[in-house]
Amino acid sequence: MKFRHPLSRAISILLVLLLGAYAAQSQLQARNEIGIPDIPGYHVLKCDFHMHTVFSDGKVWPTIRAAEAWREGLDGVAITDHLEYLPYKDDIPANFNRSYEIARPSAESLGLFFFRGAEITRPMPPGHLNAIFLEDVDKLATEKWEDAIQAASAQKAFIFWNHPGWRGQQPDGIARWYDEHTMLLEKGWLHGIEVVNGDEYYPEAHRWCLEKNLTMMGNSDIHDPMAMRYDFSRGEHRPLTLVLAKERTEAAIREALFDRRTVVYWKNSLIGSPRFLTPIFQQSISIKNAEIELAPGGRVHLQIHNASQVDYELELTEKVEGFDVPQSLTLYAGKTVPFAVRSQSREVSGEQRLSVPYTVNNLKVAPDEGLSASLTFHLRFVKSD
Amino acid sequence: MKFRHPLSRAISILLVLLLGAYAAQSQLQARNEIGIPDIPGYHVLKCDFHMHTVFSDGKVWPTIRAAEAWREGLDGVAITDHLEYLPYKDDIPANFNRSYEIARPSAESLGLFFFRGAEITRPMPPGHLNAIFLEDVDKLATEKWEDAIQAASAQKAFIFWNHPGWRGQQPDGIARWYDEHTMLLEKGWLHGIEVVNGDEYYPEAHRWCLEKNLTMMGNSDIHDPMAMRYDFSRGEHRPLTLVLAKERTEAAIREALFDRRTVVYWKNSLIGSPRFLTPIFQQSISIKNAEIELAPGGRVHLQIHNASQVDYELELTEKVEGFDVPQSLTLYAGKTVPFAVRSQSREVSGEQRLSVPYTVNNLKVAPDEGLSASLTFHLRFVKSD
Amino acid sequence: MKFRHPLSRAISILLVLLLGAYAAQSQLQARNEIGIPDIPGYHVLKCDFHMHTVFSDGKVWPTIRAAEAWREGLDGVAITDHLEYLPYKDDIPANFNRSYEIARPSAESLGLFFFRGAEITRPMPPGHLNAIFLEDVDKLATEKWEDAIQAASAQKAFIFWNHPGWRGQQPDGIARWYDEHTMLLEKGWLHGIEVVNGDEYYPEAHRWCLEKNLTMMGNSDIHDPMAMRYDFSRGEHRPLTLVLAKERTEAAIREALFDRRTVVYWKNSLIGSPRFLTPIFQQSISIKNAEIELAPGGRVHLQIHNASQVDYELELTEKVEGFDVPQSLTLYAGKTVPFAVRSQSREVSGEQRLSVPYTVNNLKVAPDEGLSASLTFHLRFVKSD
Amino acid sequence: MKFRHPLSRAISILLVLLLGAYAAQSQLQARNEIGIPDIPGYHVLKCDFHMHTVFSDGKVWPTIRAAEAWREGLDGVAITDHLEYLPYKDDIPANFNRSYEIARPSAESLGLFFFRGAEITRPMPPGHLNAIFLEDVDKLATEKWEDAIQAASAQKAFIFWNHPGWRGQQPDGIARWYDEHTMLLEKGWLHGIEVVNGDEYYPEAHRWCLEKNLTMMGNSDIHDPMAMRYDFSRGEHRPLTLVLAKERTEAAIREALFDRRTVVYWKNSLIGSPRFLTPIFQQSISIKNAEIELAPGGRVHLQIHNASQVDYELELTEKVEGFDVPQSLTLYAGKTVPFAVRSQSREVSGEQRLSVPYTVNNLKVAPDEGLSASLTFHLRFVKSD
Repeated sequence: MKFRHPLSRAISILLVLLLGAYAAQSQLQARNEIGIPDIPGYHVLKCDFHMHTVFSDGKVWPTIRAAEAWREGLDGVAITDHLEYLPYKDDIPANFNRSYEIARPSAESLGLFFFRGAEITRPMPPGHLNAIFLEDVDKLATEKWEDAIQAASAQKAFIFWNHPGWRGQQPDGIARWYDEHTMLLEKGWLHGIEVVNGDEYYPEAHRWCLEKNLTMMGNSDIHDPMAMRYDFSRGEHRPLTLVLAKERTEAAIREALFDRRTVVYWKNSLIGSPRFLTPIFQQSISIKNAEIELAPGGRVHLQIHNASQVDYELELTEKVEGFDVPQSLTLYAGKTVPFAVRSQSREVSGEQRLSVPYTVNNLKVAPDEGLSASLTFHLRFVKSD
Repeated sequence: MKFRHPLSRAISILLVLLLGAYAAQSQLQARNEIGIPDIPGYHVLKCDFHMHTVFSDGKVWPTIRAAEAWREGLDGVAITDHLEYLPYKDDIPANFNRSYEIARPSAESLGLFFFRGAEITRPMPPGHLNAIFLEDVDKLATEKWEDAIQAASAQKAFIFWNHPGWRGQQPDGIARWYDEHTMLLEKGWLHGIEVVNGDEYYPEAHRWCLEKNLTMMGNSDIHDPMAMRYDFSRGEHRPLTLVLAKERTEAAIREALFDRRTVVYWKNSLIGSPRFLTPIFQQSISIKNAEIELAPGGRVHLQIHNASQVDYELELTEKVEGFDVPQSLTLYAGKTVPFAVRSQSREVSGEQRLSVPYTVNNLKVAPDEGLSASLTFHLRFVKSD
Repeated sequence: MKFRHPLSRAISILLVLLLGAYAAQSQLQARNEIGIPDIPGYHVLKCDFHMHTVFSDGKVWPTIRAAEAWREGLDGVAITDHLEYLPYKDDIPANFNRSYEIARPSAESLGLFFFRGAEITRPMPPGHLNAIFLEDVDKLATEKWEDAIQAASAQKAFIFWNHPGWRGQQPDGIARWYDEHTMLLEKGWLHGIEVVNGDEYYPEAHRWCLEKNLTMMGNSDIHDPMAMRYDFSRGEHRPLTLVLAKERTEAAIREALFDRRTVVYWKNSLIGSPRFLTPIFQQSISIKNAEIELAPGGRVHLQIHNASQVDYELELTEKVEGFDVPQSLTLYAGKTVPFAVRSQSREVSGEQRLSVPYTVNNLKVAPDEGLSASLTFHLRFVKSD
Repeated sequence: MKFRHPLSRAISILLVLLLGAYAAQSQLQARNEIGIPDIPGYHVLKCDFHMHTVFSDGKVWPTIRAAEAWREGLDGVAITDHLEYLPYKDDIPANFNRSYEIARPSAESLGLFFFRGAEITRPMPPGHLNAIFLEDVDKLATEKWEDAIQAASAQKAFIFWNHPGWRGQQPDGIARWYDEHTMLLEKGWLHGIEVVNGDEYYPEAHRWCLEKNLTMMGNSDIHDPMAMRYDFSRGEHRPLTLVLAKERTEAAIREALFDRRTVVYWKNSLIGSPRFLTPIFQQSISIKNAEIELAPGGRVHLQIHNASQVDYELELTEKVEGFDVPQSLTLYAGKTVPFAVRSQSREVSGEQRLSVPYTVNNLKVAPDEGLSASLTFHLRFVKSD
């Protein structure tokens, strides 16, 4: 017979009181803001919509997901435990809404947006799909996957296809589009696809999002404690769905997702539309001496500061007449780098606005296409002494 | 009605197959050996005998405790979930042996020594006590604490008093000895005390161990994922009980604990008997040029290497006649530092064995007493050019 | 006979061409901006006015001082080689203006403010004094120290007393004021004192600056390559004189120094007047949820962000009636920390502006006095559900 | 007229006294031993035979080269200032033996082997050549390069060709062999080639060393302070020539160089003969559980420890009948990694010695060829429960 000690409630209260005195004792307990700037018209909210807990096959108690997200600088998260894969169910009886209910108070006290979600976990096709903004997960526990998705749709959920190239279902790692996905799309039951899941990027999914007007998602699908997978001391971070929201509200996040206003942040890359990548890049960098004097035939160094946490990797798109500029250039995160401009001719004078065309290789607008971006500054030719 | 999907078993098998291909993908998944050397006659095994999981009030699934221990370089661990404090019991029905049963296969496949344990969690006195080397935790779920301890003793458990100065039970942070502890001691039911628990060191407990011949314990008492509490990138580590075992076997760990052959490793300190601290220090350091020539009145630099991961902090115990040597000195972990020796007299000749007496402040043999240790080398006086 | 190879000029040109293609190849070659914000009315320019090169007893070629300063985020520097201490003069004939002349082109191309300086290096009293903003260092090479200082003054130099407690001249490490310093002060020949030099802080000098209206200086006095003394990977930095200048010009730096508008940045401390420290602190921190709802008797977490690179160490100055707030708190550099506020009473309602008084111990307004600063926010009491 | 202050000598003595009290104050001043093990029969001495100071076009005073080498764990170094390229000669009159003479006392007090050297700096062909083990550098200051080399040879110098693919002389970065090099080789005036110089590796040079029996050299060619080029906090290191010496003596280093017993250590690679790479690899790694039990059809994890500071990158050379083993594997420096072995058949029994053939890609025995190495262990099949 199991025993419940009569003092356990008193102990519990004591613990609450003690934890009430809790303050961040080390930098580990503090929050690292993610250095990706807002852009005109939109907040760039950092979100992860795919995480697991012990209520399916994850390895942590739900509150940990809130604490991790806060420390890592996220704005919004969803726990999406499996509906059909419950390896611990002999120890933890199935209860599909519990991980949300347990973690919500923590998430709210930390100021996070926290959404109810679930992972519909089926063989391919259609594979695994996440539904978020749910009201009652229980209703998705159906025999047929179509019913589960219909139930999600009935709750006005945002539904996306997870890791379409996952080797657990596609041993060659290549994502494939099935009739089932066409059906989902036609019924309005598929709103996005994970272009990135954990360590993997799926170029096919990237293309489908572009072709079929689907929202690009990038999520961690984390099962372990986050710090066992990502080495924050080396600058590693979980994949994120950056949501371009008009306000800092739950409704605005939802609206942005359905309107396909996302950018995926994965390793040192941002994946998305030029409509969003261009202003993110422009808000990140500044030329400290953008109006500069130069001797004909001489050389000056511009100083370019990158306020974001992404190292931008630039390659010259085409040569600039009359000037030598760097063929390739990395704008290191948080640093200022020199940018040498040399005038090729000694027979020049006057002023000139120069716009140097670069491709930013790690701002991906398509699987094999970097963002076009220009570095622009004003030169005034002066006679050197 | 909760639904169990008919394919979940297939999925489960698939996952196992996939995980079978798992290899350490990053340095995070590798093991860091702990740099504290073995000493003549004993293996110095790195152990943590106090950890929690979701089966009491911890925040992780039991297998995580094995994975963390392996990565952090431990040799042996015990999960010691609370018997009486089960805040998640509505979601996870009490099952006192489960965390051990779940984690054991992981621990064994990683080559860890893994012991069954439990925390008897009572108001002070007697406070919280851990029992390890148990056979059946259920038998400790008794109404009266004396019965729980008797049940542990009947299983030949090693029993130690946890965090005697914990502010949850001693608001001023000072450990106090009660009649109940005298009783435990007299009955042979108390074998050790936590001198260190998590971030806390209890000098009173240190003294009791010395006076009453009890085993010094140092444990993490971890509830969160380990990497949320310790910043490994800054060299932080959980507290450890170093067990001086005659062999690398479970039986030898047990024998060593009952024979009080432990050293506590906490932050940058080792706490224990000179009998063990002296050889650990001596096995750690080496003087690379211990036979050296010196001009009378001149100066030479010895080079002292510290192969351990402890920064040894030395202070000169008394001056050495005829020589100037450093008043204080840090032997940095894993590095070689210069040690300047100056001869004060120009009228010396011949050879000399010099033994310079230092106190190693962070090798603590008593609450306010560092280890006495000498740096010894041979000098030969030579005329300089 | 020494040989000069006829091709050396060609090689030299080749090297210049090659170096023309130079771009920052690694993060090491990029610039780290120093995270201390400007304040209303003033630019906070980061300067070091005391550095050595091989032209006295330093260990680097002068251009290195410019490259280091740029990488470390400085705005202005002066090389101040010794006039009287020239241990390498048999290899490098004395030439007091050379280190400035050699380094100036590098400094200018990097956009640094670069000032001509020298260290008048005499026994105590008066000890060592630096003169900066010189026009011709040669004129300071006089027999008597009074003449050297008069020559500096005649060039309208800014003159400050270096490391007054240096153990090379004050074996006990205590700074002493001599009649010679009174004379200097009365003649208008002494404008500042190094409150900090390298690893040392001189509380006596700090007090003299307050009493006698002298400019507080903090400089590196570096001789070695900077990266051999400061471990940037651990966040170490050289000491700096922060100059509060009305513009980003040389003249404005000069004006600020003579007007005593400086703050010393040393290790994790800022030393200066509350007039400057208060706005630096206020520009650094922001409360992300400064308007917050709270249940009577309940608790909320404010989130305080510190945008600077200083960890601010706060201690509660006095208790706040009706609320529990943290007794001590570290606002970690670049991070957001939680700040728990608990209402003590369940019988409260309405709104309240709360201003919690803290002392920031590492913002030093006097040797033993931290800055007074308040954390201010608005609470609205709401009934909890 | 320049002035020499009468007190400068007193100051000088004072400084010496003060520096006499110097001890390593921080980890920066300590020595990091380089983690590449000795092999049977040979010490593996870490050397850099190509460095510059202000006595040619380097940026540091010569003693800095000794201090840097000691801190970085080197055993032997040579300063090799240019003979023909002296851009600072107006400030520092040419004096070819001075950098050696100045640095030697520092190097000796630190226990370094320190060799006199010079760089013969000519247009291609023959390009730049280093001569080390010189007795008098002045004798190499000749008009014709052949005379300079003959003078070096007359002093029994070890002569090697520097950076044969340097873009300053080969704009396409490809090393070319000229008749002049054939002449040098035939006269016995060319003993080695830099396969690595700074950031560059020259595959052509690697092949020539193999074909023509020349010593492989890898050197830094450093001009700046070392810590401005290598980020030690990220594990970066200068290129090294590892010298396999029979003893720790100067003569043994010399003998090894002429006998072509070197390995080049560059970034995360070792370049050399299998005769040396094989034992270095074998001395580095150990299998902690090399005798292991395995269930037929089951799986076990070997634990492989790599005691060196090189991450070994292994790729399976061919499949092993009856077993699944990792296709690729990184043995992280200083860590233990798991190595999964799965038995494919359930119908096996007995014992088996398994030797799994891998190619270690970053141990380069030829430009495109990694070292062949086996991981060997004993399996005993046991029935699982």
